Amino acid sequence: MTRLKNDVLIRALLREPTPYTPIWLMRQAGRYLPEYNQTRARAGNFLALCKNPDFATEVTLQPIARYALDAAIVFSDILTIPDAMGLGLYFSAGEGPKFERPLRDEWAIRDLSAPDPDVHLRYVIDAVAQSRRALANSVPLIGFSGSPFTLACYMIEGQGRSDFATVKKMLYDRPDLLHRILAVNASAVTAYLNAQIQAGAQVIMIFDTWGGLLSHAAFQEFSLAYTQQILAGVARTHDGERIPRIVFTKGGGLWLESIADCGCDAAGLDWTIDIGSARSRVGSKIALQGNLDPAVLLSSPAAIKREAGAILERFGTGNGHVFNLGHGISQFTPPEHVAALVEAVHQLSAPYHSGG
Amino acid sequence: MTRLKNDVLIRALLREPTPYTPIWLMRQAGRYLPEYNQTRARAGNFLALCKNPDFATEVTLQPIARYALDAAIVFSDILTIPDAMGLGLYFSAGEGPKFERPLRDEWAIRDLSAPDPDVHLRYVIDAVAQSRRALANSVPLIGFSGSPFTLACYMIEGQGRSDFATVKKMLYDRPDLLHRILAVNASAVTAYLNAQIQAGAQVIMIFDTWGGLLSHAAFQEFSLAYTQQILAGVARTHDGERIPRIVFTKGGGLWLESIADCGCDAAGLDWTIDIGSARSRVGSKIALQGNLDPAVLLSSPAAIKREAGAILERFGTGNGHVFNLGHGISQFTPPEHVAALVEAVHQLSAPYHSGG
Repeated sequence: MTRLKNDVLIRALLREPTPYTPIWLMRQAGRYLPEYNQTRARAGNFLALCKNPDFATEVTLQPIARYALDAAIVFSDILTIPDAMGLGLYFSAGEGPKFERPLRDEWAIRDLSAPDPDVHLRYVIDAVAQSRRALANSVPLIGFSGSPFTLACYMIEGQGRSDFATVKKMLYDRPDLLHRILAVNASAVTAYLNAQIQAGAQVIMIFDTWGGLLSHAAFQEFSLAYTQQILAGVARTHDGERIPRIVFTKGGGLWLESIADCGCDAAGLDWTIDIGSARSRVGSKIALQGNLDPAVLLSSPAAIKREAGAILERFGTGNGHVFNLGHGISQFTPPEHVAALVEAVHQLSAPYHSGG
Repeated sequence: MTRLKNDVLIRALLREPTPYTPIWLMRQAGRYLPEYNQTRARAGNFLALCKNPDFATEVTLQPIARYALDAAIVFSDILTIPDAMGLGLYFSAGEGPKFERPLRDEWAIRDLSAPDPDVHLRYVIDAVAQSRRALANSVPLIGFSGSPFTLACYMIEGQGRSDFATVKKMLYDRPDLLHRILAVNASAVTAYLNAQIQAGAQVIMIFDTWGGLLSHAAFQEFSLAYTQQILAGVARTHDGERIPRIVFTKGGGLWLESIADCGCDAAGLDWTIDIGSARSRVGSKIALQGNLDPAVLLSSPAAIKREAGAILERFGTGNGHVFNLGHGISQFTPPEHVAALVEAVHQLSAPYHSGG
């Protein structure tokens, strides 16, 4: 058991006192950083970058070197699991992720099985272990996975869509098939997150990017139930340390009470919800992570300071807030705007904290 | 003053007793109907269809001829106003709407002015008048407009986007410019809706398709405030009849209480909110319209009946529900599935009503 030099994130996720509000940014190792683009060019392409633990470790640490962020998140993609299941992940220029063999036929769905992370996802586990070593206990390392439903969206459609109509059609018409896929995904994600914890991840996060497309009832049945199942199976501690778990459902503000009950320590919030109302809805049950509109980072240092200050004020005094964006950082963000945000959050948040 | 043969929609919007729950569907005159595609082919293209009142009237009435719907909505596009402002609306094959001259320069924004609907939007006003005559008081005719913010999204970006980053950048960086556009839009929409009421629209609806992309605070300031301003200026009655007003903000479930206070008689709900919770949040202040996931119509008559029944049950007994989809109908909807939905809603809803 080794002590973290900066454990402010861990303590905020567990709603313990901290001297200021910690901050990290979803997709903080990304295309807005020139050094990331250089490493990516050396790797050849995005997937090669993900699949090489040396390159993945390098980009994981880049934002930590540049900014006073309170956490690193292992560089990877949410679609590594379906790729390891044999669906054939690829990226075509200028488009999002696609699968060569989307899941459509009943026999293929019945045939689906969870990959062994230590074998088929070795490159991610190695990237976690290497990043953890490279961080040398400076800040905690976050491991992550897509949620079973979000993975299923891409697995069934074969690519991103605005409405995921094929997935929805299956949901209403053949819920048994979708439940079969989700059950396999849940077991795969559980093993994957446990392997990341074994390899050194100190926090885990589940990204339910597309859960917000579901109806109220369908969200509970087809997304949240499987997240809950995963969290029941993921290690709560490792080497004597608590491993806090964050669940982020984009567009999930209406369902915050049920998300708070799913076994997570913190819920990620997008920017559509007022964080003050969110806090009164969950009380002291969980911590909250968010919730700046990523578009604020496109504006100006003065606007960034104003908008960050407004969120800190809405959250108010007390513990349990991790500052973040409400979605991944835009590739068009000027890097100096991130510096302005990190500085603003650290400075402006101190008066709301009694110490720690 | 003429009596409507079927005024169930009007009464439901005003929370008066009805014998069953009325239903109409957003985009009910659309590409899923073979007869619509035939008329559109005769017109040449979508914009020619919109701009010819004879064709527009023809397609407005097509779903009424085919199904027992409780309302017609005038066939038009939400982007007619910016087109009339001179921005040059066009549609390229396989893509959404675009503008030849998006609003970017400060001088162009300062120069913007509201068009006279009776001159520059004559084709819409004529389509309303003709459709009203053609309906011969069978069911009410709904007139509509895009919200000032939703119009501004397309006006500034020049086309649809998933994040409208240029709009957001202006919002945070130059709120004065965005407010200027929104003020002109609000005055244009007010005049446009009043002209539609004069021409025979018996209900009006404001579509805030992109308001849900905003943060909580920005939604209030940049979208809802202008909707409120419009509703303060739109006629409440015409020819001695109340003109109910519906406001639909896609993704606006978190803000339902403030929407209920904006001067509308009913709020449209997308499918992410549980209509039972929505009803307890607004009480008897307004009626609710919605909220079936449009993807349900892609499934099967049995699933359609089950899902429609679940919404009716969640709303429960009493007045003030208009059944609808949570978004426009998909072009891939089998037309017989719409028949199954209309029949299911009319039959299954009767037990929840005491009459009328």
